[in-house]
Amino acid sequence: MKRFLFLLCAVTAFSSQAQQHLVPYVRPLIGTEKMGHTYPGATVPFGAVQLSPDTDTLSYELNGRYNGDVYKYCAGYKYEDKTIVGFSHTHFSGTGHSDLGDFLLMPTQGPLQLTPGVASDPRSGFRSAFSHANEVAEAGYYKVRLDDDNIQAELTATDRVGVHRYTFAQSAPAHVILDLMSGIYNYDDKVVWTYVRVVNDTLITGYRQTNGWARTRTEYFALSFSKKFTSYGQRNFDKPQVYKGFWRKFDQNHNFPEIAGKRIRMHFDFDVKSGEAVVAKMAISPVSQENALANLKAEVPGWSFDAVKKQAQDRWNTELNKIQIEASENDKINFYTSLYHTFINPTVYMDTDGRYRGLDQEIHQAKGFTNYTTFSLWDTYRALHPFFNLIQPGRNNDMVASMMKHFEQSTMKMLPVWSHYANDNWCMSGYHSVSVVADAIIKGVYTGDANQALEACITTSNRRTYEGIGPYIDLGYIPAESNGTSVSNTLEYAYDDWCIAQLAKKLNRMDVYETYLKRSQNWRNVFDTSIRFMRPKSREGVFKKDFDVYSTHGQGFIEGNSWNFSFFVPQDPASLMAAMGGPKAFGARLDTLFAMHLSDQFFAETEDITREGIIGGYIHGNEPAHHVAYLYNWAGQPWKTQQRIRMILKMQYKPTPDGLGGNDDCGQMSAWYLFSAMGFYPVAPGSEQYSLGSPLVKSARLQLENGKVFNVETVNQSEKNVYVEKVLLNGKPLNSLFLSHSDILKGGTITFHMSAKPVKK
Amino acid sequence: MKRFLFLLCAVTAFSSQAQQHLVPYVRPLIGTEKMGHTYPGATVPFGAVQLSPDTDTLSYELNGRYNGDVYKYCAGYKYEDKTIVGFSHTHFSGTGHSDLGDFLLMPTQGPLQLTPGVASDPRSGFRSAFSHANEVAEAGYYKVRLDDDNIQAELTATDRVGVHRYTFAQSAPAHVILDLMSGIYNYDDKVVWTYVRVVNDTLITGYRQTNGWARTRTEYFALSFSKKFTSYGQRNFDKPQVYKGFWRKFDQNHNFPEIAGKRIRMHFDFDVKSGEAVVAKMAISPVSQENALANLKAEVPGWSFDAVKKQAQDRWNTELNKIQIEASENDKINFYTSLYHTFINPTVYMDTDGRYRGLDQEIHQAKGFTNYTTFSLWDTYRALHPFFNLIQPGRNNDMVASMMKHFEQSTMKMLPVWSHYANDNWCMSGYHSVSVVADAIIKGVYTGDANQALEACITTSNRRTYEGIGPYIDLGYIPAESNGTSVSNTLEYAYDDWCIAQLAKKLNRMDVYETYLKRSQNWRNVFDTSIRFMRPKSREGVFKKDFDVYSTHGQGFIEGNSWNFSFFVPQDPASLMAAMGGPKAFGARLDTLFAMHLSDQFFAETEDITREGIIGGYIHGNEPAHHVAYLYNWAGQPWKTQQRIRMILKMQYKPTPDGLGGNDDCGQMSAWYLFSAMGFYPVAPGSEQYSLGSPLVKSARLQLENGKVFNVETVNQSEKNVYVEKVLLNGKPLNSLFLSHSDILKGGTITFHMSAKPVKK
Repeated sequence: MKRFLFLLCAVTAFSSQAQQHLVPYVRPLIGTEKMGHTYPGATVPFGAVQLSPDTDTLSYELNGRYNGDVYKYCAGYKYEDKTIVGFSHTHFSGTGHSDLGDFLLMPTQGPLQLTPGVASDPRSGFRSAFSHANEVAEAGYYKVRLDDDNIQAELTATDRVGVHRYTFAQSAPAHVILDLMSGIYNYDDKVVWTYVRVVNDTLITGYRQTNGWARTRTEYFALSFSKKFTSYGQRNFDKPQVYKGFWRKFDQNHNFPEIAGKRIRMHFDFDVKSGEAVVAKMAISPVSQENALANLKAEVPGWSFDAVKKQAQDRWNTELNKIQIEASENDKINFYTSLYHTFINPTVYMDTDGRYRGLDQEIHQAKGFTNYTTFSLWDTYRALHPFFNLIQPGRNNDMVASMMKHFEQSTMKMLPVWSHYANDNWCMSGYHSVSVVADAIIKGVYTGDANQALEACITTSNRRTYEGIGPYIDLGYIPAESNGTSVSNTLEYAYDDWCIAQLAKKLNRMDVYETYLKRSQNWRNVFDTSIRFMRPKSREGVFKKDFDVYSTHGQGFIEGNSWNFSFFVPQDPASLMAAMGGPKAFGARLDTLFAMHLSDQFFAETEDITREGIIGGYIHGNEPAHHVAYLYNWAGQPWKTQQRIRMILKMQYKPTPDGLGGNDDCGQMSAWYLFSAMGFYPVAPGSEQYSLGSPLVKSARLQLENGKVFNVETVNQSEKNVYVEKVLLNGKPLNSLFLSHSDILKGGTITFHMSAKPVKK
Repeated sequence: MKRFLFLLCAVTAFSSQAQQHLVPYVRPLIGTEKMGHTYPGATVPFGAVQLSPDTDTLSYELNGRYNGDVYKYCAGYKYEDKTIVGFSHTHFSGTGHSDLGDFLLMPTQGPLQLTPGVASDPRSGFRSAFSHANEVAEAGYYKVRLDDDNIQAELTATDRVGVHRYTFAQSAPAHVILDLMSGIYNYDDKVVWTYVRVVNDTLITGYRQTNGWARTRTEYFALSFSKKFTSYGQRNFDKPQVYKGFWRKFDQNHNFPEIAGKRIRMHFDFDVKSGEAVVAKMAISPVSQENALANLKAEVPGWSFDAVKKQAQDRWNTELNKIQIEASENDKINFYTSLYHTFINPTVYMDTDGRYRGLDQEIHQAKGFTNYTTFSLWDTYRALHPFFNLIQPGRNNDMVASMMKHFEQSTMKMLPVWSHYANDNWCMSGYHSVSVVADAIIKGVYTGDANQALEACITTSNRRTYEGIGPYIDLGYIPAESNGTSVSNTLEYAYDDWCIAQLAKKLNRMDVYETYLKRSQNWRNVFDTSIRFMRPKSREGVFKKDFDVYSTHGQGFIEGNSWNFSFFVPQDPASLMAAMGGPKAFGARLDTLFAMHLSDQFFAETEDITREGIIGGYIHGNEPAHHVAYLYNWAGQPWKTQQRIRMILKMQYKPTPDGLGGNDDCGQMSAWYLFSAMGFYPVAPGSEQYSLGSPLVKSARLQLENGKVFNVETVNQSEKNVYVEKVLLNGKPLNSLFLSHSDILKGGTITFHMSAKPVKK
């Protein structure tokens, strides 16, 4: 009841401006083709459940071994595919590696099939052909016709419950397959264990553990059907166990309610009439079967699919209304789909009773915060978390609290690198949690103990056994001998150290500030002044011979080359510019970057980057260059920032399934879009400053959680008028290329006067 | 504190008779050679920890596949072996199948070895040679010298903590191996998953899950050392995982504190001086790492090994004093070792906070009872639980409560068949829980809801899909087509149904009584009146052709032949006798049984039975015949019961490692000994009646929990005076071959007048 009142208040606060109907601008199919790695299914904002069709996951079954193509299936769904295997309940959005795909359900009619079959012949298994013509993807709702048996499948969700409605065209025996072997990024031994209890003729509970990208992941479920199944069964694909003495006691393949093993598919059988719909509700929990059942009862007590769908879409509409824009229809589609993609992750990782599984694999009670997981921090510290500090500060506060709990539960004593369902998969480089923590505290968002947070940052940055930190501390850089990404690691640590310094300064811990400000200068130690590029250096201080500034292969950088990474000093572009020869030389280098032509060899050897994500040598499809277009501001050429930003907004984001130029990376690509489309961007999170670019929208109204409204307005906005003539803040000229976070928090209006010609002054 | 006061009261109640020093009569090595399958290590009464040396467990490593010899290693230890692999914390006592062997620790010095090596060359691995000359096994304490590195290892325990003291002879680097691959009845895929956290330089927590005899077992641990380790590491014997991206981030083999995988061995390294002792405390929990740590702190807060040992042995002495006997030294050794073996299982399966893992794999809170596991019911319903009703009624009440919780948590809706650490391994036949439940209620032991218990018995007995119950209900017997043990199953169900009838009668549920009394007559349906033997019958009612009454192979019986099983109507020996031709014919058949000679072929094809366990054709080493020697009483030849009992007591129980003629079966063999040695035996649990035999002891003083004392006294007792001349109860002639449980509960004295000659009257 209390919660209900709170929601009412919240609605009241936002209702000073009429809510617009924004859900239609969200197109979940954007990014599902080529490299976007988004999924088209149903989820609610930051929901624990992401219920979505998988078009292929079990690639190991096709050839009996690991299939490199699984990269394509990070989100389970490829727009290019012609068949659907089923609908599973957990998905990452836009990642470049993956996992999840838990608890796949698939409705069928006709003879029971317990293998998925192959895409080239969908009738060879329980998968079905489908067509995009019969597919609808909306925020919080997905519908598709499964052609093989002419079944209409609809999906919607609450935070922790996926709701399916299957409408059968034929009066015939129907089956719902529960595939507990299926998973994304699957391989033969990924499923560690599965346990299922058929509690009664409508309810099933259980769990499964996987050893995938997350080393030790356990997910519980409770599945309830609107109609009694008449029979059920399993097929166990395990190799025979040594002890199967009890198998003779029961027929374990039919109507046997206590099932366990590694490779299990179940089926639940129904008698249905033509036009009949069966609703299935699947709740998940990281804690227990009991909690999954409690989540189910709390969030979806009834059987109205339409009511759940309406609630999901209402929640989306409320969230989307936090920014109301004027723009072209296509731009609104891009904008609100980006907003949708930023509000998908991180995901709630906590039950309705506040319990969750910690990094130590123990069950914890969240007190005073909502626990989140899915922190793809190498990506999201850049713009996603800063975006949350602006537009979702309450949630970002809880996200930082979740990181602090992760730290407490970490035996390594490290803040998360990539927080992944009670695991750290330690993917990518840096200790960028410290950027998120510092940014949240500096911007006044984090309400927890800031000094404790600083200590966690310090401890993390001194974990000597982690990826070169020991030599980094001792030498001021990571020697090339230590690891293959010694330069990018050094650069990223230096930026992170600057964040720690800023946080320490805020907390008046000047000893720490001095130490970390010094560490933040370490980028200089891998900067070769003779060629003015970042370059691997040996323990003895000798720069690498045979160095290729274009290549991403064995040159000391992760997912990038020296050309891009040499710009990676977001904490101090002015000093970098000086080191590179001053404004003119710096500007010229930026020009070269945007104009160069990369070889086919480059794409062949570089992970996560394709021609779609490239403008010249500027790699927008991957994160390290996301701040680069804004660096022209430091070179005294803001018009080039303005032009480049508008070009990137146009070229890299399109309202089509293949509209994203690279992995959305849990919303980082989308957050870049949202900031840039509104005319400003956080080049160095940990600072209050945003760099100004060129807004794409005609106007934007940001409803802040503090009750204030901040407006972005434009004069003479058009597709061609990409240049900024002047900027007014609350009617007064803003004689700076920066906007501060605290100015936004006060509410007010920034007005961009646009022009078709560069304004060079 | 309340608990402490209660204990004081209990001590007061028992202290009317001075406590004797009985621990020296317990010889845990009895039964460790040949077929006894007992273990020699340290445990407390009904303790959750059974800390004991394993002489071989990893047989799959020797030949890469399942090795039939693992049957020998049910208890982990074979007296015949010359090497010890290490000390693990969980063991079954006397089972004929096995599991457990969790968390094996082994101290070594010299170069680190992380494979156990082979018994023929102990220096090939971390195992060590040892000699029985340097071995001491006592109740609650075990000591052995590990010859390879001259390390003295001592073990003791509390309920949930195993305590090790390793004393090193050499000043040299030492290692303690934590082998998380090792297990009893191991095979390649038994360990499903392992997780370890090195919390600090003395504390490690974690868990492992196994898929063994128990399909889905999870055990947590917390391990603490008295001395800081200087370094640690692991070796992971898993095949490479698809995703090992994070391996490059850390050196995961050395000083890496967050470990997970399937096949892991760890080492903790110490600098020790000559004569230095390192104490290791390992707590276990079925619930969580946190609970394991709480168990550790609650039960062994300090570091005094000797204090824990004293506490363990004091507890044993208190329990053993519940029966004080006069007898020869060897008979006292046999008696108190039997008493020890009956007080080992079932085992506590609950943490100090009352939480435990239920059959549904969920965590439950025990309210008002102690939760137990390890119910080997096909064995123990016969004499062990009846023995508890006499001498441990408080614990047996909790055991029945545990069974009721098992039923509640069972999706099958069945009482346990073989309750095994939050699993039912469904081993052996019958639904003998109903016997235990009925006996406990009829004897006034169970304080829970008796009507609810009756309902659980009824529901269990009507689980049609379980091992022939459906056809048993429909036809009155299990047809031979249904399964290979159709006759013994029918006989056991008929007895169990009689137990339900008796319980129903007690509760005045006469409708149920009538139904089940009728079902209890079903033994008649597999009794072939033409040959007067139990015999498999087809669905059409035709008895099996080519029937062999001696063979145990494919004749319709489990672990026995028709000769033995044809006597299995414990609920109604009089009717069986009539069916077999009356008293004379019945007595003659019993004579034949004890005199016959079984062929070598018989032993070759029969599980769990060896020549050591046989007298003629009477198979004492396995359970189905345990009541048979008492049947002479029905035939009017009680002197033959008396002579046979004394013969069995002498031949089948010896104070030597090879002293048990068969698996002790969680105390059933020992409980038979204890009853029979005191002169009475519960032929049909579910009845208040004990049949009289011939006491072996000179006297026995039973301290009952109700405060009363019941004495067994003899006149003219001697090794030769095996016959009973007359029996007095409280000084009055007992003109019956039965003693009732309620007479015992009143306190008093039964006096057996012994004679060297049969008293035929």
